[in-house]
Amino acid sequence: PTRFDPAEHSHRRRNPLTGQWVLVSPHRAKRPWQGRQEAADDTVLPAHDPHCYLCAGNTRVSGDINPPYTGTFVFTNDHAALMPEVPAAAPQTRLDPLFQAEAARGTSRVICFSPDHARTLPELPLPAIRGVIDTWAAQSEELSARHPWVQVFENKGAIMGCSQPHPHGQIWACDHLPNEAATEDRHQREYLAAHGRPLLLDCAEREAAAGERVVVQTAHWLAVVPWWATWPFETLLLPRFAVQRLPQLTPAQRDDLAEALRRLTSRYDNLFRCSFPYSMGWHGAPFDGTAGLHWQLHAHFYPPLLRSATVRKFMVGFEMLAEAQRDLTPEQAAAQLRAVSDVHYRCTPP
Amino acid sequence: PTRFDPAEHSHRRRNPLTGQWVLVSPHRAKRPWQGRQEAADDTVLPAHDPHCYLCAGNTRVSGDINPPYTGTFVFTNDHAALMPEVPAAAPQTRLDPLFQAEAARGTSRVICFSPDHARTLPELPLPAIRGVIDTWAAQSEELSARHPWVQVFENKGAIMGCSQPHPHGQIWACDHLPNEAATEDRHQREYLAAHGRPLLLDCAEREAAAGERVVVQTAHWLAVVPWWATWPFETLLLPRFAVQRLPQLTPAQRDDLAEALRRLTSRYDNLFRCSFPYSMGWHGAPFDGTAGLHWQLHAHFYPPLLRSATVRKFMVGFEMLAEAQRDLTPEQAAAQLRAVSDVHYRCTPP
Ligand SMILES: O=P(O)(O)O[C@H]1O[C@H](CO)[C@@H](O)[C@H](O)[C@H]1O
Ligand SMILES: O=P(O)(O)O[C@H]1O[C@H](CO)[C@@H](O)[C@H](O)[C@H]1O
Repeated sequence: PTRFDPAEHSHRRRNPLTGQWVLVSPHRAKRPWQGRQEAADDTVLPAHDPHCYLCAGNTRVSGDINPPYTGTFVFTNDHAALMPEVPAAAPQTRLDPLFQAEAARGTSRVICFSPDHARTLPELPLPAIRGVIDTWAAQSEELSARHPWVQVFENKGAIMGCSQPHPHGQIWACDHLPNEAATEDRHQREYLAAHGRPLLLDCAEREAAAGERVVVQTAHWLAVVPWWATWPFETLLLPRFAVQRLPQLTPAQRDDLAEALRRLTSRYDNLFRCSFPYSMGWHGAPFDGTAGLHWQLHAHFYPPLLRSATVRKFMVGFEMLAEAQRDLTPEQAAAQLRAVSDVHYRCTPP
Repeated sequence: PTRFDPAEHSHRRRNPLTGQWVLVSPHRAKRPWQGRQEAADDTVLPAHDPHCYLCAGNTRVSGDINPPYTGTFVFTNDHAALMPEVPAAAPQTRLDPLFQAEAARGTSRVICFSPDHARTLPELPLPAIRGVIDTWAAQSEELSARHPWVQVFENKGAIMGCSQPHPHGQIWACDHLPNEAATEDRHQREYLAAHGRPLLLDCAEREAAAGERVVVQTAHWLAVVPWWATWPFETLLLPRFAVQRLPQLTPAQRDDLAEALRRLTSRYDNLFRCSFPYSMGWHGAPFDGTAGLHWQLHAHFYPPLLRSATVRKFMVGFEMLAEAQRDLTPEQAAAQLRAVSDVHYRCTPP
């Protein structure tokens, strides 16, 4: 009888942040793909598009005119999913064991990364990436006054539901802890109680020591394909120091984060030589007035591509009804990301 | 101050099967859509395609030749994600709090619904749909001898990762309880303990009485857009009698299920006059040797389309990082599905 080999044998890995398992089928990458081909995202855009709702000076669908901004630009979403004023639901609705509902209040904002219609995050100069980080932190700080949860995120690429090519992200703040936040909160709390250290600080140390899942390493940050990744090239961006929330980051930690973000997203684009689609976002301790010391601030990157710029992973069928399944090991994915340059393929040297 | 109105105000609803919440934003359906357009699935296929791996008598990628089948046809997936023989993982891997893994064993089969390359489920004669149900039940029975979980499902449409247009489903069996199974098991167990009745039997009764989320109703079955639906036109197909697993269904209950399935999937196709994509699958009590009386057998349909045959809902960004969000209420979705005929638009009268 052979020995168990995670690069050969089907197995499940547990995500300690969520308690969910992922099924890993290393041999599945060999199957031929005859299904849908995506459109590769490799178009070159103009630096300014007069029809873009997000470019500086242009008129939005609401009729509002964008200012002649030069750095980041934040505005309230013209079709926000969350709004500040909602009356409370009736007590019988709030307590019904089968048909239960609660009012949801909040706000939803858009953040343009720069006036340049053509430059995605890795293509911006480092000080501009630093500007995006500062805006994420300042928005979180401001919105935390009235919202326990502030979700900073970016949907990148048409395949990820992004409906405007101008590089931008979003910030949705709400008066409740969403599912994922509540789940990660519980698991980090339990880990600290059991082991005396924050889960993701232990994780960063062990990943740095092991090395096989590391994609980018800087003085203060570490990007890994986590042991429990579900998406093929999913990464987890971790601080190598204890920190709970975005606004706490020091100037040096922010500069270094800009560098880590640039290298990680450049490797992504270089992998299949396209503008690599993903959803990414930040998770930090809820703004509930406590120190939240069981939390470590971190960012998740969930990119859908599997084999090339045109073949994606589908999380359907078994994945929706039973559990997530992946077709290559996280170690194989990390090795592929390490094998490409961390300088962007479209980068024009200064 | 106005009263809370779920058709007007943002709110969250709780899924009692999973304990997860969904954010409902009724006003979001009004926003203009400038993002990706899907290819509408309205091609008419031939009854036999000589290049199809699944048609009767053809040669598969493995070199195996399909028999001249006339009803359903089941074979082991040529690129199975689960296989029967895997050595056990080392104890230190099985117990690691951060990097935990378990061997996964099982099998994965394909079920062709009929030799007809052109006919999807609602386009088959009723006895053929009954044949699919019998195969689902017989496969579950057979695989249950060695597997506590047998996942019967169908990925329909290229948009749902289906790589073969020949109408077919899949059956994956495994030696563990997958995430979704474990979660639904726990919530149904707790509900029975608290209320003395199976959760989904109470649910079927209340939905039938309320009526506003009902899509199809037959003597023995009920299809509803559940109170907690996350996908725009998600439905839950429920028995109106206590039953735990597919093999237990009586001949009369199976005949009536064929009718319910035909009507539900016809309404789906009629909604946007296209072959409506979805992932669907069955959940029943685990095959663990117990009666599993807290369980009710049920099927989930997870269809991605939102506004038309070409505009889908993206579960990205906020959805992946925080919680699922929907743009119309379940009651509005059910009303749209009720407003179309339950006779398939391509149906040729006999
Ligand atoms: O096995 P298939 O149909 O080729 O593959 C499809 O269904 C599987 C089970 O839901 C998924 O894991 C795959 O991502 C999807 O493309
Ligand atoms: O607000 P947008 O960018 O138009 O919309 C996109 O992001 C949202 C938040 O992740 C999702 O709910 C939408 O389904 C998606 O299309």
